[in-house]
Amino acid sequence: MKAEILTIGDELLRGEIVDSNKSFLSERLLGIDVETDWHSSVRDDPAAMADAFRRAVERAGVVLVSGGLGPTRDDLTVEVLAQTFGRRLVLDEPSLALIRGFFRALGRGMTENNAKQAWFPEGAEVLPNPIGTAPGCLLEVEGSLVFCMPGVPRELMKMMDEQVLPRIAARLPGGGAVVRARLLRTFGTGESMLDAELKDVAAQGDVSLGFRTNFPDNYLRPVARGASAQEAEAKLAQVCAELRERLGAIVYGEGEETLAQVVGRLLRASGHTLALAESCTGGLVAQLVTETPGASDYFLGGVVAYANAAKQELLGVPADLLAEHGAVSDAVARAMAEGVRARFGATWGVATTGISGPGGGSAEKPVGLVHLALAGPSGTHADHFVFPLDRERHRRLVAQAALDWVRRAELGEPLLGPTLLRARGGAAPPGGARR
Amino acid sequence: MKAEILTIGDELLRGEIVDSNKSFLSERLLGIDVETDWHSSVRDDPAAMADAFRRAVERAGVVLVSGGLGPTRDDLTVEVLAQTFGRRLVLDEPSLALIRGFFRALGRGMTENNAKQAWFPEGAEVLPNPIGTAPGCLLEVEGSLVFCMPGVPRELMKMMDEQVLPRIAARLPGGGAVVRARLLRTFGTGESMLDAELKDVAAQGDVSLGFRTNFPDNYLRPVARGASAQEAEAKLAQVCAELRERLGAIVYGEGEETLAQVVGRLLRASGHTLALAESCTGGLVAQLVTETPGASDYFLGGVVAYANAAKQELLGVPADLLAEHGAVSDAVARAMAEGVRARFGATWGVATTGISGPGGGSAEKPVGLVHLALAGPSGTHADHFVFPLDRERHRRLVAQAALDWVRRAELGEPLLGPTLLRARGGAAPPGGARR
Repeated sequence: MKAEILTIGDELLRGEIVDSNKSFLSERLLGIDVETDWHSSVRDDPAAMADAFRRAVERAGVVLVSGGLGPTRDDLTVEVLAQTFGRRLVLDEPSLALIRGFFRALGRGMTENNAKQAWFPEGAEVLPNPIGTAPGCLLEVEGSLVFCMPGVPRELMKMMDEQVLPRIAARLPGGGAVVRARLLRTFGTGESMLDAELKDVAAQGDVSLGFRTNFPDNYLRPVARGASAQEAEAKLAQVCAELRERLGAIVYGEGEETLAQVVGRLLRASGHTLALAESCTGGLVAQLVTETPGASDYFLGGVVAYANAAKQELLGVPADLLAEHGAVSDAVARAMAEGVRARFGATWGVATTGISGPGGGSAEKPVGLVHLALAGPSGTHADHFVFPLDRERHRRLVAQAALDWVRRAELGEPLLGPTLLRARGGAAPPGGARR
Repeated sequence: MKAEILTIGDELLRGEIVDSNKSFLSERLLGIDVETDWHSSVRDDPAAMADAFRRAVERAGVVLVSGGLGPTRDDLTVEVLAQTFGRRLVLDEPSLALIRGFFRALGRGMTENNAKQAWFPEGAEVLPNPIGTAPGCLLEVEGSLVFCMPGVPRELMKMMDEQVLPRIAARLPGGGAVVRARLLRTFGTGESMLDAELKDVAAQGDVSLGFRTNFPDNYLRPVARGASAQEAEAKLAQVCAELRERLGAIVYGEGEETLAQVVGRLLRASGHTLALAESCTGGLVAQLVTETPGASDYFLGGVVAYANAAKQELLGVPADLLAEHGAVSDAVARAMAEGVRARFGATWGVATTGISGPGGGSAEKPVGLVHLALAGPSGTHADHFVFPLDRERHRRLVAQAALDWVRRAELGEPLLGPTLLRARGGAAPPGGARR
């Protein structure tokens, strides 16, 4: 079964927004082994839309349409779809009631325009949209499944995962299947190593395992199929448990929770606090930590110690240490971590000092070198890495490694060292090998 | 003249990457009044590509093809294009020499695969690619202009602006025209105000003015047409001068240079230095400043003073000031800016303290309130704003406003206050009105 994805909207064709729905939908289809052969976009223009519908139904067994379900005059998807395939529009009373309820909950009146969103082509199956006013629909025409979804990414994603994918899976060979998926977030090992390590997990008949790099993390996306939701969920739980068992602390979380949020959650639970001494990351670690509301519960603050004088004055790094070892050194990283811990009175003091480049390297201390230190109640741990990455990626990887040390310290797990920590991606390093 | 954009590559149809080339190309076409009616993508599959080429040429006067120009077996664009329209492939010797030179410059040998990139359909005009190995081409078939460009965004953008747009513009009614465009970056006023203010500039016959919001900035894109490059450039220079004259310091830069980079350039030139005391921005300002290589020349460092104790201990903010006025106050912002300036021995000390939300507000100090202070050689300036934005946008707007104060201080321009500073965008504020 081949798929076509058709997105509709003038804003796309004017280049006002980058259309991320297509890649999302294609990735999800691939998760159930359906390949996308065509992506198309047309304006909110009835003739162009009709033409695109006809052509898509001609060549694809699954057609995913996104956009044009809103309440305005420009939103013509359902109307044109019905016309194109000679269907009448009929009112779906349950949808009308839901839309009414949606506006009531907001304390606003419903307009006639919104009522329009409750009309569907005769014979279509309505797909509920619990987080928006535009329901979707499935219309079967000429042997093809045409799914219409809202263009708002959040609504589209939910409808795709909960309504569309299971219906497509049910039509696949060995169909009637229910599909369930999760996202496991990992840090500290490369995609190719994950792939090799997990080959046999991915090969199980009704479970598949997708990989995605979101630098500096790697995501695993186990997908399980079963005859019922219960069966699919049980299989998914089992494969997730197996993945966690094999990878241990490499898996830092699930779903939308970032590493900084995981760290925050652990610190809040333990009542511990964090302070940061950043040199090469230049405030990035602090920024990641404070993105999350309520970070002040566990984050006391930080020092961005770019100049050596700042390292001395604000962190109490001894001048002779700087003179003897240089700012990018084990000794200075330790002194920074211990200094910031003491100054802020925090449980954990974390320090980064390195050479993010592109300039500033030497034979002895090359661009990409970074020293990390974590000072805590039972002493200070320090280590160094060489990440041959561009400046931006270097900073992001170092910041994530620093956060991961705090997470592991909170969990009592060993901290990642250069031999374990391997980041990968397009322009990724061969691995931060110990020098 | 209607345009179709056709992007080619398995990675697109697998959803591995979000295709941003399409929106870029459509936006650029619109800059010369050419509307895009169709976006399509197909796999690296000869039959699908041939079908897409035929259909595009049938319905569009301009066809922009991106991708499939690389050296691998999967890269079939030129070959299939030639086949589809019955053209032979011919070797372009200058391209071959350039590709050879490219590899020589890298100190690497050229493979046979790379030589493939010097073959083009008979009758095609070769479009040079000075920053990559894949030249593009223009083939005129059945009255349509088919442009093939590399899929690498950086190479595509350059080729689009320098090679493709002028050739399309030359065919437009009133053609023979040369098109030149620039990007002016503004901060401190809303898109609708810019639009109203600049209405008459945009209305000139051979000059058009595009607007784009890139929160918290607004970009202006003047486009000028002339019979020659010289004429177009002269018109463009004139309109840019007029825009700068009208907007004054609202225009902070041109092209790719960020506000943090402009600030860095000014500081480097004046020999001044900067230190930051961040509360609500949580390290974001420092991170923006240190994104640029060489920031250590003018950036001494910063303190992320999230906890009150940190404000006292590291910045010397008196405890009674905190107790009397609260952390989010004019008095504390001033003390933070002066404290960080003194601690780091910097020319400028900048402080942010505010309530980015979603929690933590009160009737007197609502979510969105922020106090800024700038301490310098001739005293301290402070002011406050209320930006009713979500946490992420609040932090980004505050960080940009802080940087803009440093820029204006360096230029001797008045610092933006709440009545001037209006940010706009999808979920933007009605304006940081003085409370």
